[in-house]
Amino acid sequence: MKSVVIIGAGNVAFHLTRALLQNTVNVRQIFNRTLSKAEELGEANNIKYTDKISELEKADLYIIAASDSAVEELSHYIPYTDALVVHTSGSLSTNVLKGNYRKGVFYPLQTFTKKKMLRYEEIPFFVEAENKEDEEALYKLADRISNEVHRIDSAQRLKVHLAAVWVSNFTNHMYSVGEAICKESELPFDVLRPLIKETANKVMDMSPYDAQTGPARRNDQLILTKHLELMNDDSRRQQLYKLISESIKRTYNND
Amino acid sequence: MKSVVIIGAGNVAFHLTRALLQNTVNVRQIFNRTLSKAEELGEANNIKYTDKISELEKADLYIIAASDSAVEELSHYIPYTDALVVHTSGSLSTNVLKGNYRKGVFYPLQTFTKKKMLRYEEIPFFVEAENKEDEEALYKLADRISNEVHRIDSAQRLKVHLAAVWVSNFTNHMYSVGEAICKESELPFDVLRPLIKETANKVMDMSPYDAQTGPARRNDQLILTKHLELMNDDSRRQQLYKLISESIKRTYNND
Repeated sequence: MKSVVIIGAGNVAFHLTRALLQNTVNVRQIFNRTLSKAEELGEANNIKYTDKISELEKADLYIIAASDSAVEELSHYIPYTDALVVHTSGSLSTNVLKGNYRKGVFYPLQTFTKKKMLRYEEIPFFVEAENKEDEEALYKLADRISNEVHRIDSAQRLKVHLAAVWVSNFTNHMYSVGEAICKESELPFDVLRPLIKETANKVMDMSPYDAQTGPARRNDQLILTKHLELMNDDSRRQQLYKLISESIKRTYNND
Repeated sequence: MKSVVIIGAGNVAFHLTRALLQNTVNVRQIFNRTLSKAEELGEANNIKYTDKISELEKADLYIIAASDSAVEELSHYIPYTDALVVHTSGSLSTNVLKGNYRKGVFYPLQTFTKKKMLRYEEIPFFVEAENKEDEEALYKLADRISNEVHRIDSAQRLKVHLAAVWVSNFTNHMYSVGEAICKESELPFDVLRPLIKETANKVMDMSPYDAQTGPARRNDQLILTKHLELMNDDSRRQQLYKLISESIKRTYNND
């Protein structure tokens, strides 16, 4: 890909722009419908930016790095038929891209926050395209950034995204409940941080299936009951505790 | 504490022994009902070991580092009235200790596996004792190992343990479901590892409440429905997905 235009200026756009530039890819322009956002990302990286479709430059690749709900609308903006246009979503098919151009997907599997720096070479990328040459070009581009690139179809990508929701969004919610319990007990969340870190560390070289511990894993009914009693004032938290514990028990067939 | 005897030879005993020795505490003896296990831990650390109660040496402190269900029975074994006896459990009160001696708790908040080395100074310790001097002595002992020591009562400790189940055991189960989905899609679990690491890293200096992302957080009904459809062959996984998503929505009042 000789030249790239980034459509969007949010968390994914921020990190993709940096990752591409770090690997000497020619990022030509940032487009965002809010000029101030395009400006911020453009200025930070010394790249041209615009909020006007009429000013959209010609490039080999357009990466729409926007929220799922915005991708389709943004996809109308690209007027060049001789271009490849991709989105970065884990769950959208290429069909949401509505212009008269070649289509594909460039999906980085990571949780992005502007403030948090990342090692881009560790981020798995999943690429997909309507034709082989484009898939190959996307593969090569991702391969410049990352050590782990996969070619997958939309059905598989949807599964990866679903798995990501479990290990990231749902995991964070578990942290969040822990934080709430700490607050209720007037203990700082800090006391849980080393445990959170080590729980993640453990599965870096172990299977989560093997790493499972705790009262549900041991089927320790005494503690399970005690914990449920502790949550008597919050029936929904109780119900969630029960269901996750049952799911753990079932996983090890000791239900 | 001039001298310590460790009762038990499992994961917690293994790491506590190492942590105490590293901080030049005099660990006098390992006791375990299975000689081979006592031997393994004793030999590895150049400490005496036994499986015979009659050979239990006199010490200032006995740490029962055993599974919750074994603590009470083991507590009968200690014949010395002039000693402090503690367990390492997050959920048991001091009442389970049945001998005629002074009682307390020495609870390290971490997930322990023998193979996985740990930085002991980062592990939060929670201490409790029936009298002030013992509490002070336990505090000082924990303080030699760790940078984060707290005095708490049994009710608070139970809450900490409950919070730990959420952020560690339940989190690991989320990883486990992710692993299962990968397996079903013939993708290596490796693709999820960077995301798992970063999801934990994120909350090292951020509140999980602020770090939450994902379809449930955005109330993205389109993706939530798509994901539920993907799990049509597993109604229990579906139910769990639904309940956790609802819990996230409720947390941000966008239900």
